[in-house]
Amino acid sequence: MRSPIPDYLAEVRGAVEPDRSGAPAGYIPELAAADPERLGMAFAMVDGEVHACGDADQAFTIQSISKPFVYALALADRGFDTVLDKIGVEPSGEAFNEISLEAGTGRPLNPMINAGAIATHSLAGTEQMGAGDRLQRVIDGLSAFAGRSLATDESVFASEMAHAHRNLAIAHMLRTHDILTEDPATVVEGYTRQCSVLVTVRDLAVMAATLANNGVHPVSGQRVVPGPVVRQVLSVMSTCGMYDAAGDWATQVGIPAKSGVAGGLIGSLPGQVGIATFSPRLDAHGNSVRGVSLFKRFSSDMGLHLMEVPASARAVVRGTRVVGTGTAAGRVVEIQGAIRFTGAERLVREIVSIAPREPGVALDLTHVHSIDDVARRMLLEVVRRLTLDGHDVYLVDPETMVPDPDPGDGGRVVAVRTVEEFVHRHG
Amino acid sequence: MRSPIPDYLAEVRGAVEPDRSGAPAGYIPELAAADPERLGMAFAMVDGEVHACGDADQAFTIQSISKPFVYALALADRGFDTVLDKIGVEPSGEAFNEISLEAGTGRPLNPMINAGAIATHSLAGTEQMGAGDRLQRVIDGLSAFAGRSLATDESVFASEMAHAHRNLAIAHMLRTHDILTEDPATVVEGYTRQCSVLVTVRDLAVMAATLANNGVHPVSGQRVVPGPVVRQVLSVMSTCGMYDAAGDWATQVGIPAKSGVAGGLIGSLPGQVGIATFSPRLDAHGNSVRGVSLFKRFSSDMGLHLMEVPASARAVVRGTRVVGTGTAAGRVVEIQGAIRFTGAERLVREIVSIAPREPGVALDLTHVHSIDDVARRMLLEVVRRLTLDGHDVYLVDPETMVPDPDPGDGGRVVAVRTVEEFVHRHG
Amino acid sequence: MRSPIPDYLAEVRGAVEPDRSGAPAGYIPELAAADPERLGMAFAMVDGEVHACGDADQAFTIQSISKPFVYALALADRGFDTVLDKIGVEPSGEAFNEISLEAGTGRPLNPMINAGAIATHSLAGTEQMGAGDRLQRVIDGLSAFAGRSLATDESVFASEMAHAHRNLAIAHMLRTHDILTEDPATVVEGYTRQCSVLVTVRDLAVMAATLANNGVHPVSGQRVVPGPVVRQVLSVMSTCGMYDAAGDWATQVGIPAKSGVAGGLIGSLPGQVGIATFSPRLDAHGNSVRGVSLFKRFSSDMGLHLMEVPASARAVVRGTRVVGTGTAAGRVVEIQGAIRFTGAERLVREIVSIAPREPGVALDLTHVHSIDDVARRMLLEVVRRLTLDGHDVYLVDPETMVPDPDPGDGGRVVAVRTVEEFVHRHG
Amino acid sequence: MRSPIPDYLAEVRGAVEPDRSGAPAGYIPELAAADPERLGMAFAMVDGEVHACGDADQAFTIQSISKPFVYALALADRGFDTVLDKIGVEPSGEAFNEISLEAGTGRPLNPMINAGAIATHSLAGTEQMGAGDRLQRVIDGLSAFAGRSLATDESVFASEMAHAHRNLAIAHMLRTHDILTEDPATVVEGYTRQCSVLVTVRDLAVMAATLANNGVHPVSGQRVVPGPVVRQVLSVMSTCGMYDAAGDWATQVGIPAKSGVAGGLIGSLPGQVGIATFSPRLDAHGNSVRGVSLFKRFSSDMGLHLMEVPASARAVVRGTRVVGTGTAAGRVVEIQGAIRFTGAERLVREIVSIAPREPGVALDLTHVHSIDDVARRMLLEVVRRLTLDGHDVYLVDPETMVPDPDPGDGGRVVAVRTVEEFVHRHG
Repeated sequence: MRSPIPDYLAEVRGAVEPDRSGAPAGYIPELAAADPERLGMAFAMVDGEVHACGDADQAFTIQSISKPFVYALALADRGFDTVLDKIGVEPSGEAFNEISLEAGTGRPLNPMINAGAIATHSLAGTEQMGAGDRLQRVIDGLSAFAGRSLATDESVFASEMAHAHRNLAIAHMLRTHDILTEDPATVVEGYTRQCSVLVTVRDLAVMAATLANNGVHPVSGQRVVPGPVVRQVLSVMSTCGMYDAAGDWATQVGIPAKSGVAGGLIGSLPGQVGIATFSPRLDAHGNSVRGVSLFKRFSSDMGLHLMEVPASARAVVRGTRVVGTGTAAGRVVEIQGAIRFTGAERLVREIVSIAPREPGVALDLTHVHSIDDVARRMLLEVVRRLTLDGHDVYLVDPETMVPDPDPGDGGRVVAVRTVEEFVHRHG
Repeated sequence: MRSPIPDYLAEVRGAVEPDRSGAPAGYIPELAAADPERLGMAFAMVDGEVHACGDADQAFTIQSISKPFVYALALADRGFDTVLDKIGVEPSGEAFNEISLEAGTGRPLNPMINAGAIATHSLAGTEQMGAGDRLQRVIDGLSAFAGRSLATDESVFASEMAHAHRNLAIAHMLRTHDILTEDPATVVEGYTRQCSVLVTVRDLAVMAATLANNGVHPVSGQRVVPGPVVRQVLSVMSTCGMYDAAGDWATQVGIPAKSGVAGGLIGSLPGQVGIATFSPRLDAHGNSVRGVSLFKRFSSDMGLHLMEVPASARAVVRGTRVVGTGTAAGRVVEIQGAIRFTGAERLVREIVSIAPREPGVALDLTHVHSIDDVARRMLLEVVRRLTLDGHDVYLVDPETMVPDPDPGDGGRVVAVRTVEEFVHRHG
Repeated sequence: MRSPIPDYLAEVRGAVEPDRSGAPAGYIPELAAADPERLGMAFAMVDGEVHACGDADQAFTIQSISKPFVYALALADRGFDTVLDKIGVEPSGEAFNEISLEAGTGRPLNPMINAGAIATHSLAGTEQMGAGDRLQRVIDGLSAFAGRSLATDESVFASEMAHAHRNLAIAHMLRTHDILTEDPATVVEGYTRQCSVLVTVRDLAVMAATLANNGVHPVSGQRVVPGPVVRQVLSVMSTCGMYDAAGDWATQVGIPAKSGVAGGLIGSLPGQVGIATFSPRLDAHGNSVRGVSLFKRFSSDMGLHLMEVPASARAVVRGTRVVGTGTAAGRVVEIQGAIRFTGAERLVREIVSIAPREPGVALDLTHVHSIDDVARRMLLEVVRRLTLDGHDVYLVDPETMVPDPDPGDGGRVVAVRTVEEFVHRHG
Repeated sequence: MRSPIPDYLAEVRGAVEPDRSGAPAGYIPELAAADPERLGMAFAMVDGEVHACGDADQAFTIQSISKPFVYALALADRGFDTVLDKIGVEPSGEAFNEISLEAGTGRPLNPMINAGAIATHSLAGTEQMGAGDRLQRVIDGLSAFAGRSLATDESVFASEMAHAHRNLAIAHMLRTHDILTEDPATVVEGYTRQCSVLVTVRDLAVMAATLANNGVHPVSGQRVVPGPVVRQVLSVMSTCGMYDAAGDWATQVGIPAKSGVAGGLIGSLPGQVGIATFSPRLDAHGNSVRGVSLFKRFSSDMGLHLMEVPASARAVVRGTRVVGTGTAAGRVVEIQGAIRFTGAERLVREIVSIAPREPGVALDLTHVHSIDDVARRMLLEVVRRLTLDGHDVYLVDPETMVPDPDPGDGGRVVAVRTVEEFVHRHG
């Protein structure tokens, strides 16, 4: 069988290709000279599979798409307190190059506008680092997200530096508020090099998938940044990633996203997928025209909107039955599905309602698809309470969904691999 | 067994109760006289179960929490185009009572600030309705979300009307821009009555759960508003619900939410749960002090943050085996879990990789927990392509996850209830 | 001889008449229907002479030109503290209908924008007055400035009231800040009637001349408002009178001014002249197109710019001579010109330099053209010091420029009408 | 006699000296270390006389007081069009160090805020000048206003440069809008040196008097800048000179002014006087506390408010009489006072009213104190019309108030020195 996914990508590519509206960024010759017909797209699944289509291996400069990743690095390297003290998380409702500093403190409103991104660059790596080491940390970090060693486009860098007056203005302004503590021109140079890192949509999709995979590179399995950092970065992307069109994007697309002036655009949907597109013509907001169209299609066609209510699931408790008799009697509660808080709540409720009278109780996880920390804690609390009620409690857990189960505080549990084993041991 | 959930709620209640910071809203005597010690909270699951704790049956006025629900009614009654033409969806980064109209058009920036909410009120019901009918439509609609008939507090209403100068100012300003087309004072009166509807946290949790349940009341099963309306409302709550603290809330709590000046606060997590709290003391942003603390606890303790990456799930393809031999040979592909786009993508990939040579192929959905529209379409496309490759394709679907399967365009499929039936029929 | 002034006015009229750019205000039919060809202008001298040209007796509604006059009435009726407490004096750099309230206090930035003018209306008359009496006070006050009884155009009034939503919005907003303490709708009604007072350019020129004449009507000699009020009003007109074109007007015209949406425009140059023009077509700022052109011509042709440095004047001390001999010797110091601080300073210096040794000193004011308070006080201080130095001091003051001269504190002076009288009496 | 002026200055000095509120500028050590007790003041009359009191010869850095003078130089060197194209004239209502660029064009709102002043510096001298020559032009120009060679304080300059991040931010922002076309850092360096020029209050008073004297140095008689430039500079000072307190200053003081962060403050009243004060402690607006108090005293005590309506003057026509008889009959019209437009208008009116029937008419200017261009033109028009009416017209002009009188276009006039000469020649 041939996969329908390449066919789907080819179809949406064909649908957006005729749109020649917008224009490539024109402020430096290198960007203005970009081939405006280029069109690439890629999906990277959280298990590392990549579906690409069109100009997926065409290199272009990452530009502002570097912002969420370097924000992640800064949070990881310096901690939340230091970074939040210098850079806010509020949407600015303004264009990317507005200064937008908080009155009084001079804090940039968020890390997705240039002011915040320049401050972010200065917070990557350790405080003691010189500018060269800091830049290396940034490039190494971006490379870790991509899973390959990335390089800069020195000609774009040089040209951007010659047009960096607005960023220099911003950096000097940040310096007056002590948001920056280093030489403004040096920080702008580092930031500009960060923006000139060369990537393909394949790279960007994988980078976005590393966020979607909670900070772990989907292919190498390397942890690039901790989970709480990912949550912060995706939250900020969701409210501030698309500048002054934040509300339109949140309602119409609903995928945490970030665009770059070279025509790149990424989206990252937690636990699911990283997406990237590339097409150099930009709209009035500075976002890739075809990229925006593609994301609207993806969101709608694939039900990827964050506020899409999932199909209602089957009952968590698949069934319950009694095995054995007398003191050997055991109640088997068969659980199924992907268990998070709401599933665990349902499970609790069912067990309370069943009110098992049998001496043994087995919670059968054979058909459980996934279980998160909260659900695991709630499951173990159920185990503990059943123990205190006088039951012998077993977990039938053939694939070790709950490793080393320890209900604590008076609870006891025996992990077994099959219901038969429960029957055997309990009996 | 006693459910641990009431214990959990009692524990967090005990944790926030000592916090006496903030003060009840003081602009009208009725609110200023609220008992500041009141503290209630409720969870409503999407299957209708409610967990409540504290002053859960204490009535108070809904105030701004009515905004997202009436926005939903307006979208349902007038359609997206009409409503979006009058009211934007961009975060304002400003306090609730700022005017915040879009330059030029005079459109309120979003429906969660007063300007937008006043315009929203005027868009509930049909265009032809008089003010009385429109108000009735609003109260009926709020009642439908709650699942019981709600009433207004006429004394709060009267007092608010005597202090409605800012809202009157806003309404007259909207009238100059033709955002309002009716008498401004009459619209403000209707809006003020809408805000004086009496609710309990139990009501609010159910109302929020109706949103989380895609617009269907979790107890009655009545559809209150269509799914696309819910997606729009939750998106706007996620970016504009908490006024000028939108970014803090999005990063720290990550649940689409809305607060009211009487001390109420709701959150709605798609597909999972509606949450409501009540405590009259407000912080400087006008949000309930203890309510904000409770939501931070809930989000963190229960992993309810929108950007929380779910635990990685088991493989979608649980296993594959061959049954029968020769022309009777059949390949059984056993699928498991909650299948959305990413799961379906994985399934596609696995089947491509298996490249079954057997004449019969059975996709076994016995252990599938849920499947959404996108995944269903992708599954049927797999069926179609397998048919075109010359296979006889079966769906083993004992619980009818895919009703009336029709792959279309050359595809054919037979639904059976067991693998044995496949073996039997195919053989 | 025929006066050249009518010829001059006819010439500038001819120069601006062909300009048909701009359009009459279109927000109410009554203004939109104004004959756009109308063109009138008038100069009122501070002695009551009026030079008029064109449609000088065409009545039109005063509109915003009422603002400075009613501000004067409010200052006179309530005192500076009360008025300044409610309404600022800072330029807003914004259009006339912007709300522009001071953050925190809600004070309108100045009395020339609508917010300030509505607040001003409510401060005319006494605090106890009802709305009808207050309106009467306003109309009587405007009539006193004009020197004839003015009436309102009830059809314009009614039409404006039907389009008063923005002003109602502003008034309600002022009410929330307690800048207004009365019913907002009633104040807007009064204010709208104030704006519908009918005037001609002849009236407006006289009204402006009353300001230029320090608050005294140039024909009747009636004091309408006190001098310090006039200084305040002219100062505010000079910085806030022309809305968002304040700087252009201050540099290019340099006459404190105010325009009205019906096409009127006034200017008032302290001590010199009141000017008014009328032509209904407005520019983008809402100022009369031809009116602005006329004022530029007037300012330039007649040297009326406030910052025009006057021609350097002749010496203040015209000459000095000795009369008589011995103890009868007297020093006559002949003074000339218009004496203000700078002239008096020069006089002081000359007398110090002369160091008269004669027993008698006569300060001869025969050729003094004018003398202000400061100069009078300085002159008397000179008299006092000369007395203390042992001189007999005389003022030769045939036209009583210094009535009842009293140098005080040891000073003595004898007023005479001629130098001969000094010679006679001193000798 | 001893002049009362030093006594007056000593008195106001004593009145403000006890006020120790405010604090010297603290952003660089050199300013923070200023002796806060220093207090100096000076008046420079337009004839060059200077009255000084207190620390009048204490040197301090000119800082922002350089702005109006360098604006004058730029206007003189590059012309109005070039300068107005780059820098607006609208009040900003903001603090001195706000960026305040016009939306779209990036033009600084006015030359008195730093953004405008930095742009102004770059416009002094010719376009071709290098940075060194431009700085020399600025220092030479400031020296010409002062009438002595001024020098910079290199230690203040060095310290300011180390804290120039905000100005560098502004300059880079101006560069992005092509308001600056040179290297931003170099322009800021030049501007900072301009601000570090050392002056005394004596210097500043003379510089202000050069403006008051229409651009001509009051002692040397050297023209520093043309008259129209002075009018522009004084207009801009009057609306933008005192930053965000523009309206308070305009109403309470009413003298075009400019303050500097080192504690200097100047005012310039056209045709009258230049004033300067020095006291380092600043208020919240950045203006010298005692300096503001002194200016309020000066304005009030000496009637220097721009909107002060002058004392009403005597009649312009002092009298009229007939000399001689028959064809030798002559009408003498004796004129008096300082004649500007309003005086000339009165004169015209009187002569029209007199309707002289005598063959000869003499306009006797013996008692005319001053006459400006407009009045001179109107006088000659009267002469022309009298000629055309058949009169022989004479000007009795002993002090040559009207040099080379030429009424043109059919007019004829004979200038004589006495009425007797008229009688003699006409007869």
